[in-house]
Amino acid sequence: MTDLWPDVRPDAARRLMAAAVAAFGERGYHATTTRDIATAAGMSPAALYVHFPSKAAVLSAISRSGHEKALAMVTSAAAGPGTAADRMRVLVAEFVAWHARRHQVARIVQYELTALPQPDYDLVVDLRRRTDSVVRSLIEEGVASGAFRTPDLRSASRAVLSLGIDVARWYTPDSKPDPESLGAEYADLVLAMLGAR
Amino acid sequence: MTDLWPDVRPDAARRLMAAAVAAFGERGYHATTTRDIATAAGMSPAALYVHFPSKAAVLSAISRSGHEKALAMVTSAAAGPGTAADRMRVLVAEFVAWHARRHQVARIVQYELTALPQPDYDLVVDLRRRTDSVVRSLIEEGVASGAFRTPDLRSASRAVLSLGIDVARWYTPDSKPDPESLGAEYADLVLAMLGAR
Repeated sequence: MTDLWPDVRPDAARRLMAAAVAAFGERGYHATTTRDIATAAGMSPAALYVHFPSKAAVLSAISRSGHEKALAMVTSAAAGPGTAADRMRVLVAEFVAWHARRHQVARIVQYELTALPQPDYDLVVDLRRRTDSVVRSLIEEGVASGAFRTPDLRSASRAVLSLGIDVARWYTPDSKPDPESLGAEYADLVLAMLGAR
Repeated sequence: MTDLWPDVRPDAARRLMAAAVAAFGERGYHATTTRDIATAAGMSPAALYVHFPSKAAVLSAISRSGHEKALAMVTSAAAGPGTAADRMRVLVAEFVAWHARRHQVARIVQYELTALPQPDYDLVVDLRRRTDSVVRSLIEEGVASGAFRTPDLRSASRAVLSLGIDVARWYTPDSKPDPESLGAEYADLVLAMLGAR
C-alpha cells in the first residue's frame, strides 16, 4: 500500500500511513490509538511522533493525499481529448477503478471527514467542492452541446460521484469484476444516466 | 428518532437504540461504550442490560430493523401496480428518500456490518442478498419486456442500490433538495441509466 504515496518521505512516514489505513479500517478512527498505528508499522509510539504530531495528523495526510489524487484524476480526464462523452467515460472509469483498487484508503478518505482537524477539514472540503465542480462543468458542457440530456445538474453530478465513492464501501479483493472492468461498466451506466446520444 | 421502531417495546429500549445511533454516528461503533449509550438515553449502564445483553446487541437490533425495512420497501414497490418502469420509479424514490430522511440510522445500517456478531451478521447478509435480488429481478423483467435496456444486470442493480445508499453518507438536515424531491430526481436518473424507453 505504501506505493500510494510516492512523494512521502521518509519510508517510515509512508509505513505509518499504511498502518493507519489498516487500523482505521478495522476499528474506526476514534478507537485507534497512536500506539496501535506505531505497533502495526513495527515502530515505537515515540518514533511515530518524529513524523506526525498526532493521530489526527496521520488522518489528515491520508485524507489530503486521497482528495488531491481524486481532484487531479477528474481534472485530467475532463481536460483530455475527445467529446464530453469521451471524457466523461474516462473520468468515471478511472474514478470507479481507483475506489475499487484502493478501497481501503478510499474508505478513510470518504468516511472520516468529521474527524479531520482544522484547517485540514476546510482544505479537504475545498478539494471536494472543486472535484464536484469539474464533474458538474463537464456535464454542463455536454448538455450545452446536446451530447447529454439531464434535467438537474446538481443531482446528476452528485450521482456520478456517488456511484464511484460507494464502490469503496462494498468492494473487497474477492469482488467481481476486476476494478478496470467495473470502471468500464459504470462508465456505460453513467453515460446512459446522462442521456448521452 | 424513536418513531423509527414502533414495534420495539418498552419505550426505554427504543430510547437506547436512538441514543446508540447518535453515539455510533459521532465516534464510531468501536469507540462507543455501553455507558455512553445509557447516559445519552438518561439511564444507568445497569438499566441498559435489562434490555440488551451487550453493545453488539443494540447494534444488531438497529441493523436488523433497518435491513428489514429496506427489504420490505423494495419488495412492496416491486410488487406494486404499473409497468416495470413505474415500479422502479417508486422503488428508487422511496429508497432514496428513506436514506436522506433517516441518514443517521442509515449510516449505521450501511457502514457497521463487520461489527455485527454472529448469527446477526449472517441474517443481515441474507436480508441484503434478498434486497439486491428484488432489484435485479425487476431490472431483468424490464429488460425482458423491452422496457429497459442495460448490458449488465449485476452492475445495474448494484448501481441502483448504491445511489440510494450513498445518500446517507452526505445528506444532512441542511441538504437540498428535501428527501422526497431528491428521491424523484434520482428516480429519473435511474430510469435513464436503465435505458427506459
